[in-house]
Amino acid sequence: MNPIVSVFAASPDRGRGLARDMAVRWALAESGQGYEIRPLSFAELKTAQHKARQPFGQIPTFEADGVSLFESGAIVLHIAETHGLLPTDHAARARAIAWMFAAVSTIEPVIVEREVAVLLEGDKPWTAERLPMLEARLRLRLDDLAAWLNEKNWLEGEFSAGDIMMVCVLRRPAVALLMGDYPVLAAYVARAEARPAFRIAFAEQLARFEASRG
Amino acid sequence: MNPIVSVFAASPDRGRGLARDMAVRWALAESGQGYEIRPLSFAELKTAQHKARQPFGQIPTFEADGVSLFESGAIVLHIAETHGLLPTDHAARARAIAWMFAAVSTIEPVIVEREVAVLLEGDKPWTAERLPMLEARLRLRLDDLAAWLNEKNWLEGEFSAGDIMMVCVLRRPAVALLMGDYPVLAAYVARAEARPAFRIAFAEQLARFEASRG
Repeated sequence: MNPIVSVFAASPDRGRGLARDMAVRWALAESGQGYEIRPLSFAELKTAQHKARQPFGQIPTFEADGVSLFESGAIVLHIAETHGLLPTDHAARARAIAWMFAAVSTIEPVIVEREVAVLLEGDKPWTAERLPMLEARLRLRLDDLAAWLNEKNWLEGEFSAGDIMMVCVLRRPAVALLMGDYPVLAAYVARAEARPAFRIAFAEQLARFEASRG
Repeated sequence: MNPIVSVFAASPDRGRGLARDMAVRWALAESGQGYEIRPLSFAELKTAQHKARQPFGQIPTFEADGVSLFESGAIVLHIAETHGLLPTDHAARARAIAWMFAAVSTIEPVIVEREVAVLLEGDKPWTAERLPMLEARLRLRLDDLAAWLNEKNWLEGEFSAGDIMMVCVLRRPAVALLMGDYPVLAAYVARAEARPAFRIAFAEQLARFEASRG
Protein backbone atom coordinates (compact mmCIF):
# COMPACT_ATOMS: atom_id res chain seq x y z
CA MET A 1 0.00 0.00 0.00
CA ASN A 2 1.31 3.44 -0.92
CA PRO A 3 1.08 6.23 1.67
CA ILE A 4 -1.91 8.59 1.40
CA VAL A 5 -1.24 12.34 1.53
CA SER A 6 -4.03 14.89 2.06
CA VAL A 7 -3.69 17.91 -0.23
CA PHE A 8 -5.80 20.89 -1.27
CA ALA A 9 -8.32 19.87 -3.94
CA ALA A 10 -7.54 23.23 -5.58
CA SER A 11 -4.45 24.85 -4.11
CA PRO A 12 -4.80 28.60 -3.51
CA ASP A 13 -1.25 29.00 -4.85
CA ARG A 14 -2.53 27.97 -8.32
CA GLY A 15 0.05 25.20 -8.71
CA ARG A 16 3.19 27.08 -7.73
CA GLY A 17 4.20 24.44 -5.17
CA LEU A 18 3.82 26.76 -2.18
CA ALA A 19 1.34 24.70 -0.17
CA ARG A 20 2.73 22.55 2.62
CA ASP A 21 2.16 19.27 0.81
CA MET A 22 5.08 20.23 -1.46
CA ALA A 23 7.72 19.28 1.14
CA VAL A 24 6.03 15.92 1.66
CA ARG A 25 5.73 15.21 -2.08
CA TRP A 26 9.39 16.22 -2.53
CA ALA A 27 10.62 13.97 0.32
CA LEU A 28 8.65 11.06 -1.15
CA ALA A 29 10.10 11.73 -4.60
CA GLU A 30 13.65 11.88 -3.18
CA SER A 31 12.92 8.48 -1.63
CA GLY A 32 11.49 7.01 -4.83
CA GLN A 33 8.32 6.30 -2.87
CA GLY A 34 4.97 6.43 -4.67
CA TYR A 35 1.88 7.80 -2.94
CA GLU A 36 -1.81 8.45 -3.36
CA ILE A 37 -3.41 11.82 -2.71
CA ARG A 38 -6.64 12.68 -0.92
CA PRO A 39 -7.79 16.00 -2.40
CA LEU A 40 -9.84 18.02 0.11
CA SER A 41 -11.95 21.14 -0.40
CA PHE A 42 -11.77 23.97 2.14
CA ALA A 43 -15.12 22.78 3.54
CA GLU A 44 -13.83 19.22 3.91
CA LEU A 45 -10.77 20.46 5.84
CA LYS A 46 -13.01 21.72 8.62
CA THR A 47 -15.07 18.53 9.08
CA ALA A 48 -14.82 16.37 12.20
CA GLN A 49 -13.60 13.54 9.97
CA HIS A 50 -10.57 15.53 8.81
CA LYS A 51 -9.91 17.11 12.22
CA ALA A 52 -9.62 13.60 13.69
CA ARG A 53 -6.59 13.29 11.40
CA GLN A 54 -5.44 16.92 11.51
CA PRO A 55 -6.63 18.70 14.67
CA PHE A 56 -6.23 22.17 13.11
CA GLY A 57 -8.05 21.40 9.86
CA GLN A 58 -5.01 21.84 7.63
CA ILE A 59 -3.08 19.95 4.98
CA PRO A 60 -0.97 17.84 4.63
CA THR A 61 -1.68 14.62 6.47
CA PHE A 62 0.09 11.32 5.89
CA GLU A 63 -1.05 7.76 6.48
CA ALA A 64 1.04 4.64 5.91
CA ASP A 65 1.58 1.30 7.64
CA GLY A 66 -0.43 2.19 10.74
CA VAL A 67 1.22 5.62 11.06
CA SER A 68 -1.11 8.63 10.84
CA LEU A 69 0.64 12.00 10.90
CA PHE A 70 0.15 15.73 10.51
CA GLU A 71 2.61 18.69 10.40
CA SER A 72 4.76 18.75 7.27
CA GLY A 73 7.95 18.84 9.38
CA ALA A 74 6.98 15.68 11.25
CA ILE A 75 5.90 13.92 8.05
CA VAL A 76 9.13 14.79 6.24
CA LEU A 77 11.13 13.66 9.28
CA HIS A 78 9.25 10.35 9.33
CA ILE A 79 9.90 9.79 5.61
CA ALA A 80 13.53 10.88 6.06
CA GLU A 81 14.15 8.43 8.91
CA THR A 82 12.91 5.50 6.88
CA HIS A 83 14.32 6.49 3.46
CA GLY A 84 17.84 7.83 4.02
CA LEU A 85 17.19 11.58 3.85
CA LEU A 86 19.15 12.10 7.07
CA PRO A 87 22.86 11.54 7.68
CA THR A 88 23.68 8.21 9.36
CA ASP A 89 26.20 9.85 11.70
CA HIS A 90 24.53 10.56 15.06
CA ALA A 91 25.68 14.17 15.43
CA ALA A 92 25.09 15.10 11.78
CA ARG A 93 21.59 13.59 11.89
CA ALA A 94 20.70 15.77 14.89
CA ARG A 95 22.02 18.86 13.06
CA ALA A 96 19.85 18.13 10.01
CA ILE A 97 16.81 17.92 12.30
CA ALA A 98 17.82 21.24 13.89
CA TRP A 99 17.60 22.82 10.43
CA MET A 100 14.13 21.33 9.93
CA PHE A 101 12.98 23.06 13.12
CA ALA A 102 14.81 26.27 12.15
CA ALA A 103 12.93 26.34 8.84
CA VAL A 104 9.44 26.09 10.35
CA SER A 105 10.05 27.80 13.69
CA THR A 106 12.65 30.54 13.06
CA ILE A 107 12.39 31.41 9.35
CA GLU A 108 8.82 30.65 8.29
CA PRO A 109 6.95 32.70 10.94
CA VAL A 110 8.51 36.01 9.86
CA ILE A 111 7.69 35.13 6.24
CA VAL A 112 4.09 34.27 7.05
CA GLU A 113 3.73 37.45 9.11
CA ARG A 114 4.78 39.48 6.05
CA GLU A 115 2.35 37.59 3.81
CA VAL A 116 -0.56 37.80 6.23
CA ALA A 117 -0.12 41.57 6.42
CA VAL A 118 -1.03 41.73 2.72
CA LEU A 119 -3.54 38.87 2.54
CA LEU A 120 -5.57 39.68 5.65
CA GLU A 121 -4.79 43.36 6.24
CA GLY A 122 -3.98 44.61 2.76
CA ASP A 123 -6.96 46.97 2.82
CA LYS A 124 -6.05 48.49 6.20
CA PRO A 125 -4.65 52.04 6.42
CA TRP A 126 -1.65 50.90 8.50
CA THR A 127 -0.34 48.24 6.15
CA ALA A 128 1.83 50.54 4.02
CA GLU A 129 3.67 51.69 7.15
CA ARG A 130 3.94 48.19 8.63
CA LEU A 131 5.40 46.45 5.57
CA PRO A 132 8.91 47.94 5.87
CA MET A 133 9.02 46.91 9.54
CA LEU A 134 8.01 43.35 8.67
CA GLU A 135 10.52 43.25 5.83
CA ALA A 136 13.26 44.36 8.23
CA ARG A 137 12.39 41.52 10.62
CA LEU A 138 12.51 39.05 7.75
CA ARG A 139 15.84 40.42 6.50
CA LEU A 140 17.45 39.85 9.90
CA ARG A 141 16.78 36.13 9.49
CA LEU A 142 17.76 36.02 5.82
CA ASP A 143 21.02 37.87 6.58
CA ASP A 144 21.96 35.22 9.15
CA LEU A 145 20.92 32.34 6.92
CA ALA A 146 22.90 33.70 3.95
CA ALA A 147 25.93 34.21 6.21
CA TRP A 148 25.65 30.59 7.33
CA LEU A 149 25.25 29.18 3.83
CA ASN A 150 27.95 31.35 2.29
CA GLU A 151 29.72 28.98 -0.11
CA LYS A 152 28.06 25.76 1.06
CA ASN A 153 25.91 23.80 -1.37
CA TRP A 154 23.56 22.62 1.37
CA LEU A 155 22.94 23.64 4.99
CA GLU A 156 25.22 20.93 6.42
CA GLY A 157 27.32 18.63 4.25
CA GLU A 158 25.11 16.49 2.03
CA PHE A 159 21.56 17.37 0.96
CA SER A 160 19.10 16.34 3.70
CA ALA A 161 15.54 16.71 4.95
CA GLY A 162 16.71 20.00 6.51
CA ASP A 163 17.21 21.41 3.01
CA ILE A 164 13.78 20.19 1.91
CA MET A 165 12.08 22.12 4.70
CA MET A 166 14.26 25.22 4.34
CA VAL A 167 13.92 25.49 0.56
CA CYS A 168 10.13 25.10 0.73
CA VAL A 169 10.02 28.00 3.18
CA LEU A 170 12.35 30.18 1.09
CA ARG A 171 10.21 29.65 -2.03
CA ARG A 172 7.36 31.62 -0.47
CA PRO A 173 6.51 34.89 -2.23
CA ALA A 174 7.59 37.23 0.59
CA VAL A 175 11.15 35.90 0.24
CA ALA A 176 11.06 35.76 -3.54
CA LEU A 177 10.51 39.54 -3.52
CA LEU A 178 13.87 40.02 -1.75
CA MET A 179 15.95 37.40 -3.53
CA GLY A 180 17.74 40.02 -5.64
CA ASP A 181 19.52 41.08 -2.43
CA TYR A 182 20.40 37.49 -1.46
CA PRO A 183 22.29 35.82 -4.30
CA VAL A 184 23.52 33.08 -1.91
CA LEU A 185 19.94 32.14 -1.04
CA ALA A 186 18.74 32.45 -4.64
CA ALA A 187 21.50 30.06 -5.76
CA TYR A 188 20.64 27.64 -2.96
CA VAL A 189 16.95 27.55 -3.94
CA ALA A 190 17.85 27.18 -7.64
CA ARG A 191 20.20 24.29 -6.80
CA ALA A 192 17.37 22.55 -4.97
CA GLU A 193 14.80 23.23 -7.69
CA ALA A 194 17.13 21.58 -10.22
CA ARG A 195 17.01 18.26 -8.37
CA PRO A 196 15.05 15.64 -10.31
CA ALA A 197 12.93 14.81 -7.25
CA PHE A 198 11.94 18.46 -6.81
CA ARG A 199 10.87 18.60 -10.44
CA ILE A 200 8.80 15.44 -10.11
CA ALA A 201 7.06 16.72 -6.98
CA PHE A 202 6.45 20.12 -8.55
CA ALA A 203 4.95 18.56 -11.66
CA GLU A 204 2.68 16.35 -9.56
CA GLN A 205 1.24 19.22 -7.53
CA LEU A 206 0.82 21.30 -10.70
CA ALA A 207 -1.00 18.46 -12.43
CA ARG A 208 -3.33 18.24 -9.43
CA PHE A 209 -4.08 21.98 -9.63
CA GLU A 210 -4.73 21.76 -13.36
CA ALA A 211 -7.04 18.77 -12.86
CA SER A 212 -9.03 20.85 -10.34
CA ARG A 213 -9.84 23.35 -13.08
CA GLY A 214 -11.56 20.57 -15.00
CA MET B 1 30.74 15.44 31.05
CA ASN B 2 27.35 17.07 31.49
CA PRO B 3 25.72 18.80 28.50
CA ILE B 4 26.19 22.56 28.21
CA VAL B 5 23.10 24.70 27.54
CA SER B 6 23.35 28.35 26.45
CA VAL B 7 20.85 30.58 28.25
CA PHE B 8 20.19 34.30 28.68
CA ALA B 9 22.55 35.75 31.31
CA ALA B 10 19.55 37.81 32.47
CA SER B 11 16.29 36.55 30.96
CA PRO B 12 13.96 39.32 29.76
CA ASP B 13 11.07 37.33 31.26
CA ARG B 14 12.49 38.03 34.76
CA GLY B 15 12.56 34.36 35.74
CA ARG B 16 9.06 33.34 34.66
CA GLY B 17 10.34 30.39 32.61
CA LEU B 18 9.18 31.82 29.29
CA ALA B 19 12.53 31.80 27.46
CA ARG B 20 13.22 28.90 25.14
CA ASP B 21 15.79 27.28 27.40
CA MET B 22 12.89 26.26 29.68
CA ALA B 23 11.84 23.36 27.42
CA VAL B 24 15.44 22.10 27.33
CA ARG B 25 15.89 22.40 31.10
CA TRP B 26 12.57 20.61 31.62
CA ALA B 27 13.43 17.75 29.25
CA LEU B 28 16.78 17.31 31.01
CA ALA B 29 15.06 17.31 34.41
CA GLU B 30 12.50 14.72 33.20
CA SER B 31 15.49 12.61 32.15
CA GLY B 32 17.34 13.07 35.44
CA GLN B 33 20.23 14.48 33.42
CA GLY B 34 22.40 17.18 34.97
CA TYR B 35 23.77 20.04 32.84
CA GLU B 36 25.91 23.13 32.94
CA ILE B 37 24.75 26.51 31.67
CA ARG B 38 26.57 29.08 29.56
CA PRO B 39 24.96 32.43 30.42
CA LEU B 40 25.19 34.89 27.52
CA SER B 41 24.49 38.62 27.40
CA PHE B 42 22.55 40.09 24.48
CA ALA B 43 25.85 41.39 23.07
CA GLU B 44 27.44 37.92 23.33
CA LEU B 45 24.51 36.37 21.43
CA LYS B 46 25.40 38.39 18.35
CA THR B 47 29.13 37.52 18.27
CA ALA B 48 30.66 35.36 15.55
CA GLN B 49 31.63 32.86 18.25
CA HIS B 50 28.00 32.32 19.28
CA LYS B 51 26.65 32.44 15.72
CA ALA B 52 28.98 29.56 14.84
CA ARG B 53 26.87 27.56 17.32
CA GLN B 54 23.52 29.29 16.72
CA PRO B 55 23.33 30.88 13.26
CA PHE B 56 20.51 33.27 14.30
CA GLY B 57 22.17 34.49 17.50
CA GLN B 58 19.53 33.04 19.83
CA ILE B 59 19.32 30.77 22.86
CA PRO B 60 19.27 27.88 23.65
CA THR B 61 22.13 25.83 22.29
CA PHE B 62 23.15 22.38 23.49
CA GLU B 63 26.48 20.60 23.39
CA ALA B 64 27.14 17.06 24.56
CA ASP B 65 29.18 14.07 23.42
CA GLY B 66 30.18 15.62 20.10
CA VAL B 67 26.65 16.81 19.35
CA SER B 68 26.20 20.57 18.95
CA LEU B 69 22.59 21.70 18.49
CA PHE B 70 20.32 24.72 18.27
CA GLU B 71 16.49 25.09 18.08
CA SER B 72 14.70 24.11 21.28
CA GLY B 73 12.51 21.61 19.40
CA ALA B 74 15.53 19.79 17.97
CA ILE B 75 17.33 19.81 21.32
CA VAL B 76 14.31 18.44 23.18
CA LEU B 77 13.85 15.79 20.48
CA HIS B 78 17.50 14.77 20.83
CA ILE B 79 17.20 14.50 24.63
CA ALA B 80 13.88 12.66 24.26
CA GLU B 81 15.32 10.09 21.87
CA THR B 82 18.13 9.22 24.24
CA HIS B 83 16.20 9.44 27.55
CA GLY B 84 12.79 7.84 27.03
CA LEU B 85 10.63 10.94 26.55
CA LEU B 86 9.08 9.44 23.41
CA PRO B 87 6.86 6.38 23.14
CA THR B 88 8.69 3.22 22.06
CA ASP B 89 5.89 2.25 19.65
CA HIS B 90 6.81 3.39 16.12
CA ALA B 91 3.48 5.05 15.27
CA ALA B 92 3.02 6.68 18.69
CA ARG B 93 6.58 8.03 18.59
CA ALA B 94 5.89 9.72 15.24
CA ARG B 95 2.69 11.26 16.65
CA ALA B 96 4.55 12.73 19.63
CA ILE B 97 7.01 14.33 17.22
CA ALA B 98 4.07 15.71 15.20
CA TRP B 99 2.91 17.50 18.35
CA MET B 100 6.39 18.96 18.85
CA PHE B 101 6.21 20.48 15.37
CA ALA B 102 2.60 21.60 15.94
CA ALA B 103 3.69 23.47 19.07
CA VAL B 104 6.44 25.49 17.39
CA SER B 105 5.01 25.75 13.88
CA THR B 106 1.20 25.95 14.24
CA ILE B 107 0.55 27.31 17.75
CA GLU B 108 3.56 29.42 18.69
CA PRO B 109 3.64 31.76 15.64
CA VAL B 110 0.14 33.15 16.29
CA ILE B 111 1.11 33.67 19.94
CA VAL B 112 4.33 35.45 19.04
CA GLU B 113 2.49 37.61 16.51
CA ARG B 114 0.12 38.78 19.28
CA GLU B 115 3.05 39.49 21.60
CA VAL B 116 5.13 41.28 19.01
CA ALA B 117 2.18 43.58 18.27
CA VAL B 118 2.48 44.90 21.82
CA LEU B 119 6.26 44.68 22.30
CA LEU B 120 7.33 46.19 18.98
CA GLU B 121 4.26 48.11 17.86
CA GLY B 122 2.60 48.95 21.17
CA ASP B 123 3.09 52.68 20.56
CA LYS B 124 1.59 52.62 17.04
CA PRO B 125 -1.86 54.07 16.35
CA TRP B 126 -3.09 50.87 14.69
CA THR B 127 -2.31 48.44 17.49
CA ALA B 128 -5.61 48.88 19.37
CA GLU B 129 -7.52 47.92 16.23
CA ARG B 130 -5.18 45.05 15.33
CA LEU B 131 -5.20 43.28 18.71
CA PRO B 132 -8.74 41.84 18.41
CA MET B 133 -7.85 40.46 14.94
CA LEU B 134 -4.70 38.81 16.29
CA GLU B 135 -6.59 37.44 19.26
CA ALA B 136 -9.18 35.93 16.92
CA ARG B 137 -6.42 34.17 14.93
CA LEU B 138 -4.95 32.81 18.15
CA ARG B 139 -8.36 31.65 19.40
CA LEU B 140 -8.89 29.59 16.23
CA ARG B 141 -5.86 27.51 17.18
CA LEU B 142 -6.70 27.32 20.87
CA ASP B 143 -10.27 26.22 20.05
CA ASP B 144 -8.93 23.32 17.98
CA LEU B 145 -6.32 22.38 20.55
CA ALA B 146 -8.87 22.41 23.39
CA ALA B 147 -11.25 20.30 21.29
CA TRP B 148 -8.46 17.79 20.70
CA LEU B 149 -7.40 17.62 24.36
CA ASN B 150 -10.93 17.51 25.72
CA GLU B 151 -10.70 14.97 28.57
CA LYS B 152 -7.19 13.71 27.82
CA ASN B 153 -4.44 14.23 30.37
CA TRP B 154 -1.77 14.61 27.69
CA LEU B 155 -1.83 15.18 23.94
CA GLU B 156 -1.47 11.48 23.08
CA GLY B 157 -1.50 8.75 25.71
CA GLU B 158 1.43 9.13 28.11
CA PHE B 159 3.30 12.38 28.79
CA SER B 160 5.94 12.95 26.09
CA ALA B 161 8.29 15.51 24.56
CA GLY B 162 5.26 16.75 22.60
CA ASP B 163 3.69 17.93 25.85
CA ILE B 164 6.93 19.65 26.92
CA MET B 165 6.97 21.75 23.74
CA MET B 166 3.22 22.46 23.77
CA VAL B 167 3.04 23.46 27.43
CA CYS B 168 6.03 25.80 27.08
CA VAL B 169 4.24 27.52 24.20
CA LEU B 170 0.92 27.75 26.09
CA ARG B 171 2.62 29.35 29.11
CA ARG B 172 3.38 32.48 27.09
CA PRO B 173 1.59 35.64 28.25
CA ALA B 174 -0.64 36.06 25.18
CA VAL B 175 -2.27 32.71 25.96
CA ALA B 176 -2.34 33.26 29.70
CA LEU B 177 -4.59 36.29 29.05
CA LEU B 178 -7.20 34.00 27.46
CA MET B 179 -6.97 31.00 29.75
CA GLY B 180 -10.21 31.90 31.53
CA ASP B 181 -12.02 30.90 28.33
CA TYR B 182 -10.08 27.63 27.98
CA PRO B 183 -10.43 25.58 31.16
CA VAL B 184 -9.27 22.46 29.31
CA LEU B 185 -5.98 24.15 28.38
CA ALA B 186 -5.58 25.75 31.79
CA ALA B 187 -5.94 22.34 33.46
CA TYR B 188 -3.47 20.82 30.99
CA VAL B 189 -0.84 23.48 31.75
CA ALA B 190 -1.46 23.18 35.51
CA ARG B 191 -1.06 19.38 35.30
CA ALA B 192 2.30 19.86 33.56
CA GLU B 193 3.48 22.55 35.97
CA ALA B 194 2.81 20.17 38.86
CA ARG B 195 5.34 17.64 37.56
CA PRO B 196 8.45 17.47 39.75
CA ALA B 197 10.72 17.89 36.71
CA PHE B 198 8.90 21.07 35.65
CA ARG B 199 9.34 22.49 39.16
CA ILE B 200 13.04 21.66 39.18
CA ALA B 201 13.58 23.29 35.78
CA PHE B 202 11.55 26.33 36.75
CA ALA B 203 13.51 26.77 39.98
CA GLU B 204 16.80 26.47 38.11
CA GLN B 205 15.96 29.16 35.57
CA LEU B 206 14.59 31.41 38.34
CA ALA B 207 17.77 30.97 40.37
CA ARG B 208 19.77 31.97 37.30
CA PHE B 209 17.69 35.14 36.88
CA GLU B 210 18.08 36.02 40.55
CA ALA B 211 21.83 35.47 40.37
CA SER B 212 21.96 37.91 37.44
CA ARG B 213 20.63 40.65 39.71
CA GLY B 214 23.66 40.15 41.94
